[in-house]
Amino acid sequence: MPFHRRLACKLNYFQSIILMFAAVILIGAALLMLPISAQERTVTPFHEALFTATSAVCVTGLVVRDTASHWSAFGQAVLMVLIQIGGLGVITVGASFSLLSGRRISLSQRGRMQEAMSAPKVGGIVRLTGFVIRTSLMIEGIGALCMLPVFCRDFGVSGIWKAVFHSVSAFCNAGFDLMGTPDMPFVSLTAYRADPVINLTISALIVVGGVGFLTWDDVRTNRLCFHRYRLQSKVILAATALLILLPTLYFFCFEFKGSTLRERLLLSLFQSVTPRTAGFNTADYTSLSSSGRGLTILLMFIGGSPGSTAGGIKTTTAAVLVANAFAVFHRQKSPEMFGRRMEEKAVHDAAAIFTLYLVLSLTGAFVISTVETLPLSECLFETTSAIATVGLSLGLTPHLGIVSQGILIFLMFIGRVGGLTMIYAALSGSKSSVARLPQERITVG
Amino acid sequence: MPFHRRLACKLNYFQSIILMFAAVILIGAALLMLPISAQERTVTPFHEALFTATSAVCVTGLVVRDTASHWSAFGQAVLMVLIQIGGLGVITVGASFSLLSGRRISLSQRGRMQEAMSAPKVGGIVRLTGFVIRTSLMIEGIGALCMLPVFCRDFGVSGIWKAVFHSVSAFCNAGFDLMGTPDMPFVSLTAYRADPVINLTISALIVVGGVGFLTWDDVRTNRLCFHRYRLQSKVILAATALLILLPTLYFFCFEFKGSTLRERLLLSLFQSVTPRTAGFNTADYTSLSSSGRGLTILLMFIGGSPGSTAGGIKTTTAAVLVANAFAVFHRQKSPEMFGRRMEEKAVHDAAAIFTLYLVLSLTGAFVISTVETLPLSECLFETTSAIATVGLSLGLTPHLGIVSQGILIFLMFIGRVGGLTMIYAALSGSKSSVARLPQERITVG
Ligand SMILES: [K+]
Ligand SMILES: [K+]
Repeated sequence: MPFHRRLACKLNYFQSIILMFAAVILIGAALLMLPISAQERTVTPFHEALFTATSAVCVTGLVVRDTASHWSAFGQAVLMVLIQIGGLGVITVGASFSLLSGRRISLSQRGRMQEAMSAPKVGGIVRLTGFVIRTSLMIEGIGALCMLPVFCRDFGVSGIWKAVFHSVSAFCNAGFDLMGTPDMPFVSLTAYRADPVINLTISALIVVGGVGFLTWDDVRTNRLCFHRYRLQSKVILAATALLILLPTLYFFCFEFKGSTLRERLLLSLFQSVTPRTAGFNTADYTSLSSSGRGLTILLMFIGGSPGSTAGGIKTTTAAVLVANAFAVFHRQKSPEMFGRRMEEKAVHDAAAIFTLYLVLSLTGAFVISTVETLPLSECLFETTSAIATVGLSLGLTPHLGIVSQGILIFLMFIGRVGGLTMIYAALSGSKSSVARLPQERITVG
Repeated sequence: MPFHRRLACKLNYFQSIILMFAAVILIGAALLMLPISAQERTVTPFHEALFTATSAVCVTGLVVRDTASHWSAFGQAVLMVLIQIGGLGVITVGASFSLLSGRRISLSQRGRMQEAMSAPKVGGIVRLTGFVIRTSLMIEGIGALCMLPVFCRDFGVSGIWKAVFHSVSAFCNAGFDLMGTPDMPFVSLTAYRADPVINLTISALIVVGGVGFLTWDDVRTNRLCFHRYRLQSKVILAATALLILLPTLYFFCFEFKGSTLRERLLLSLFQSVTPRTAGFNTADYTSLSSSGRGLTILLMFIGGSPGSTAGGIKTTTAAVLVANAFAVFHRQKSPEMFGRRMEEKAVHDAAAIFTLYLVLSLTGAFVISTVETLPLSECLFETTSAIATVGLSLGLTPHLGIVSQGILIFLMFIGRVGGLTMIYAALSGSKSSVARLPQERITVG
């Protein structure tokens, strides 16, 4: 048996997913360290290259160096490939290579693909993966074409590259941008705050990328018959609509008061879409009120939908928790949504994910706040941005010490690989014991 | 059938609990409005009297008027009675009057008493209530005696009243104090920051009051045989120890840097004990770092233990959520602690309570922050303090408008009556339907 097959036998799905992600990140970091990757043809320090590669593969978008002014065209191309791999998922990309080369996909590989896409069953997974890859590339192409005229007007020929890069970055919910200059780094899309084409194209790419592959499949199969959709798709679409409309309303009523009506509407919409979990921004977050920032932290924490390029605890997790609260208050045994009961396990998993994300983002914020003597709320903004792989920033990240940046790298990795995947891998040996312990009542609340 | 019996038949346990709390609050507010209740013999406005009465009955300790300088001796006595009633629970107090008057306690009354104490079974509830009342009064007496020398040294004869009032206020986790003067209102116990007698007595009263009546019963019955305790008592004692030690360590290492070693130790200990959910303070919270305030918000949110005078989501709720996270990550079906399995229902209830408290405190903070244009983090401090019936304040509360004070009154009431009690009452008719909906899978996280 060749070495890699023997290794594969010893690893479970989850461990191999983690190893693959880690390998792609390390290869990316090595490529980014090469002098050819930097504008100034110098070697980028390892920790900065590692931070950038992690941020790209985990489609986060937090950066320690301004993307456009530090990295060369080669470096930017490396970043785009890393984003594309990270966004579609290492497994999906690997599977598509196997497909292209005509090799048969093994059952264990199908299982991995299923995990990667949160698909309910293994059957049809190869067909689904092909659909995902084709649709992704097509949508990214359309997005690039929409933005081409604007970017070519402003940047000439290099506008083509900018259109492609931003389309990929938006669709994969990565949030990397090429708008910084040596004098004005980290500006993201603030220059296009009033441009409807860029605002709406990027917003649409973010939303389509963030609702998840399976939702597209449902939309493609069932078209407008909403009642025939999977429960999951219904929940995702309803939650996404609500989580865009309500924050837009809030931002429109209480923020951006100095802007014109059109600018204010676009700013409100974009700043509602981007925290879940894109990471571009057209407004300066340091100029927002503390409520606006708090709302952004909440939106980042909730994030996108399962089986997508997005991070966060996920819309379905939030929906299950809310439905569970209603079920408990109505003294029903299990939560219900759209005329369907949810499993007990869904509630347990949702509570566990929520607890994990909360503990990690708060602990990270406390440590960074204490180490760097920065306000806790600002640190919480950065750590939530990292664990939910958003990439929005109040501008602290480039100035943090190595310990704090290490914490952010760890949070991004956990956030993209997924809390459960990570921990299942670490604890794969310890399945539930046969002899169950005696039960005892405990009062809560 | 007399009117009050017919009324009692129509109301369920929960509705009658809420009505009794509301009635006591309104009577208290009426008494506090009387000119005889104020130092200046003037009528206190209704909304201020209502806020103060709610704060006392809900053992919160948030105030809009400084207790010592605004209220007369009569007003202070009214407050102490309200605190005692609110602390022991309206039902417990009612039952003890019945006991003293020799009337038989009906089965439905026993049920109410069981709910009020989070007791696992109705049997022995009358014996337990008697034990609770006797022990409470005894501990409050001991506390008052301990503090008597210090207060008599500082205030002469009126030190006796101060010792009794502070003992009751500390044991009931109310946090009302009589230390303010017209020139220096709202000072709480900051003058005694270096006094070991006051610090340790008050801390002990807070902890003993906060672990819950059933835990005392366990300690009394099983003495030092920790393994024979109820699961609930074990969890409560372990969580309480941890939630005092760890924050003390944090505060000692990172806060109060200008103080002497002894003062720093006492300050750290007291500021770790008081957020869960006493509400006295010996340090000025506005001088704490943002991390220190954030930690305080977390501690307030967790709060005390079920069946006690304390508020918050409760230590057991936090413990169930953490145990559930571990169980999910170990792929066990139900969470385990101290060699016992917990019910599925405990996880559902804990997640629901957590969701409810989070939504309420955040929504309250957003509204107050927007209405009063104050920083969100400071508003979150006040709303968490209200819903967890803590009473710590960054000093905003007396300056808030009527809408914001109304929100705090609502949060205090929900926090003391208990989220579940409140909502069960509102929705008592709608028990789970017989026909169960079909189940469908949903992916979370
Ligand atoms: K992102
Ligand atoms: K209190």
